[in-house]
Amino acid sequence: IQSKFPDLGLTIFSRMSALAAETGAINLSQGFPDFACDASLLEGVTAAMREGHNQYAPMPGLPALRQAIAAKMAAAGGLEVDADHEITVCAGATQALYTAIATVLRSGDEAIILEPAYDSYAPAIVAQGAVPVRISLAAPDFAVDWAAVAAAVSGRTRLIIVNNPNNPATSVFSQADLAALAEIAERHDLLVLSDEVYEHLVFDGRRHASVLSHPQLRTRSFAVYSFGKTFHATGWKVGYCVAAPALTAEFRKLHQYLVFSVSTPMQHALAAHLRQAGHWQGLAAFYQAKRDRLAMGLRAAGFELLPSAATYFQLADYSRIRPDLGELAFAEWLTREHGVASIPVSAFYADGRNNKLVRFCFAKKAETLDAAIERLGRLT
Amino acid sequence: IQSKFPDLGLTIFSRMSALAAETGAINLSQGFPDFACDASLLEGVTAAMREGHNQYAPMPGLPALRQAIAAKMAAAGGLEVDADHEITVCAGATQALYTAIATVLRSGDEAIILEPAYDSYAPAIVAQGAVPVRISLAAPDFAVDWAAVAAAVSGRTRLIIVNNPNNPATSVFSQADLAALAEIAERHDLLVLSDEVYEHLVFDGRRHASVLSHPQLRTRSFAVYSFGKTFHATGWKVGYCVAAPALTAEFRKLHQYLVFSVSTPMQHALAAHLRQAGHWQGLAAFYQAKRDRLAMGLRAAGFELLPSAATYFQLADYSRIRPDLGELAFAEWLTREHGVASIPVSAFYADGRNNKLVRFCFAKKAETLDAAIERLGRLT
Ligand SMILES: CSCCC(=O)C(=O)O
Ligand SMILES: CSCCC(=O)C(=O)O
Repeated sequence: IQSKFPDLGLTIFSRMSALAAETGAINLSQGFPDFACDASLLEGVTAAMREGHNQYAPMPGLPALRQAIAAKMAAAGGLEVDADHEITVCAGATQALYTAIATVLRSGDEAIILEPAYDSYAPAIVAQGAVPVRISLAAPDFAVDWAAVAAAVSGRTRLIIVNNPNNPATSVFSQADLAALAEIAERHDLLVLSDEVYEHLVFDGRRHASVLSHPQLRTRSFAVYSFGKTFHATGWKVGYCVAAPALTAEFRKLHQYLVFSVSTPMQHALAAHLRQAGHWQGLAAFYQAKRDRLAMGLRAAGFELLPSAATYFQLADYSRIRPDLGELAFAEWLTREHGVASIPVSAFYADGRNNKLVRFCFAKKAETLDAAIERLGRLT
Repeated sequence: IQSKFPDLGLTIFSRMSALAAETGAINLSQGFPDFACDASLLEGVTAAMREGHNQYAPMPGLPALRQAIAAKMAAAGGLEVDADHEITVCAGATQALYTAIATVLRSGDEAIILEPAYDSYAPAIVAQGAVPVRISLAAPDFAVDWAAVAAAVSGRTRLIIVNNPNNPATSVFSQADLAALAEIAERHDLLVLSDEVYEHLVFDGRRHASVLSHPQLRTRSFAVYSFGKTFHATGWKVGYCVAAPALTAEFRKLHQYLVFSVSTPMQHALAAHLRQAGHWQGLAAFYQAKRDRLAMGLRAAGFELLPSAATYFQLADYSRIRPDLGELAFAEWLTREHGVASIPVSAFYADGRNNKLVRFCFAKKAETLDAAIERLGRLT
């Protein structure tokens, strides 16, 4: 077989998690919690299975789940979303992102991505025979230079992909960011794909503003969400895509032949769980405490920290610890020699640049964070 | 948005299931069981969730599940498969099929499909900017004219997609079919994608022979399987793709960015269930009895039946009942006027030809089949 993807290796998340497992390191690399999800959520799956909900769900998702999503979006974000024509339940956010990209892009098209970029965007673009056009954001604040984005638009550009809140930058779009994005998208008639899986993990009183909250972006954007991130169940692989009816209709044309439908018992459980009002309200405080706990330890260990405004990740500069190492080498050294796994930020840049930054996941039990801190305490 | 898929409508399965629900008809259209799956399978999910298996599974699938699949393939089909390098767990067979197609095809390539063809193949090909080349098989036996397949190969052909056992034809490949396929694939250096989701539902003492059992096809084929079909849990959306290491490596490059991983608790439950030796042995007899029960009723109602050699479907000719109607019109009439939903076989042909055939699903409780038979008894 002549490879269609000669440049693709194993995702950095699989690589670092495998190295952590192999070496017995504490795994702060791949983004997932190590604590239990809500017992009532699990019981919902058991109940649904017992009630016989084990056959195909409707292709766009269970109506009860889509209605619960719409109600939650109204309550949490003041967004009005049509459950029938604007929401499609997906086999995780990754499938939602891939499907949106494959819905929009044809061979030869261009899509703009902002780096650091989550590592699935570019391969999904390339898989369509399309071309990722990269705009690079720089530490420490990773602000978007919208003039540079506008300058990158060509006659072949069809899509701009954004990630808000941003993993791994942890930055959150301001209203001015949304306005600038809207202006460019309107002027050049582009579509927008906004990865918003960390919508509820926004700290220090900041607020997340979805592309869906902006009138001009509302009609030309796909927004992608994840139950795995919000409900501490990344292994369930259920997420959803929200987009205006015309976009959703196109999305579903492909979705039905790419995966058809999503786990029926889990959709039932999630529908019931979502109806519990305000479940998302404690999330930011819950994770902010974890952030602060890990940050204290990282600082004591000699890392210089970038602000973590959102997501469940903390970026840390290791210049004072091992300035001689590249990011991947540092992350491997830290895993092997000190038993704590992280993610090199270079994995989110196509040019693999070295900013001496690694990313730690703080979606962990206090005891896990403390154990990691203890190990890191022996660094200096 | 300018549609990338102007010709795609809603799948016939969603359409007919929706019509059945709307009209209160007995739904023998979309292929899924209406009876419970094994209680121990459900308990396995509950146990896995309670034990905390709710975070990302490894990207290629849980090792325990891949090993159980390899053991089952050895026991049931005498196939030797490497669990580490040849099996990838997928979010249902549809995702496995789509991923294999997207792994192989580039814009401008051609893929040969045999009609009647399951309705996801052609859209998945078109989504790659590739071109489906159709070879038509004719009722009643739907035998493959391999000379016609060979003649359809061009310099742009990359892939032949087969479905064995075939839905909706219900036919099963002979050794001669596999040999002919292998000869063509070797001669033109083509890859093969074999949809084998009905591998265990083969009747009257026939045997299913996988592409993986043929030495020449073994190295150039992807074979796709479904736990939903085998374990009566179509709504769980777990299947898998088996292919030689070089093909699997390419498949996983895309899989990791298309969906990343598959439901962890369900993979745990399936791994335990698969270890129960011989679980698949009773399946053919179980479904053959259902086939015979429905067949008797359909004949009495005035249908002329085609042989059902495999799958859980029965093709029926309605010429003696309403020769004036096209297939979709007949299926809609039967749903609305007589309360039994079926699938028009024209949905599996791009040219929408009228053979006066509809497909009934007999994966139903005896009482459901009897209720449908009673309604159909009023036809004449
Ligand atoms: C799909 S594995 C990656 C999980 C994640 O979102 C991250 O670590 O950034
Ligand atoms: C994915 S819905 C279709 C189910 C099925 O396999 C069929 O009815 O042929």
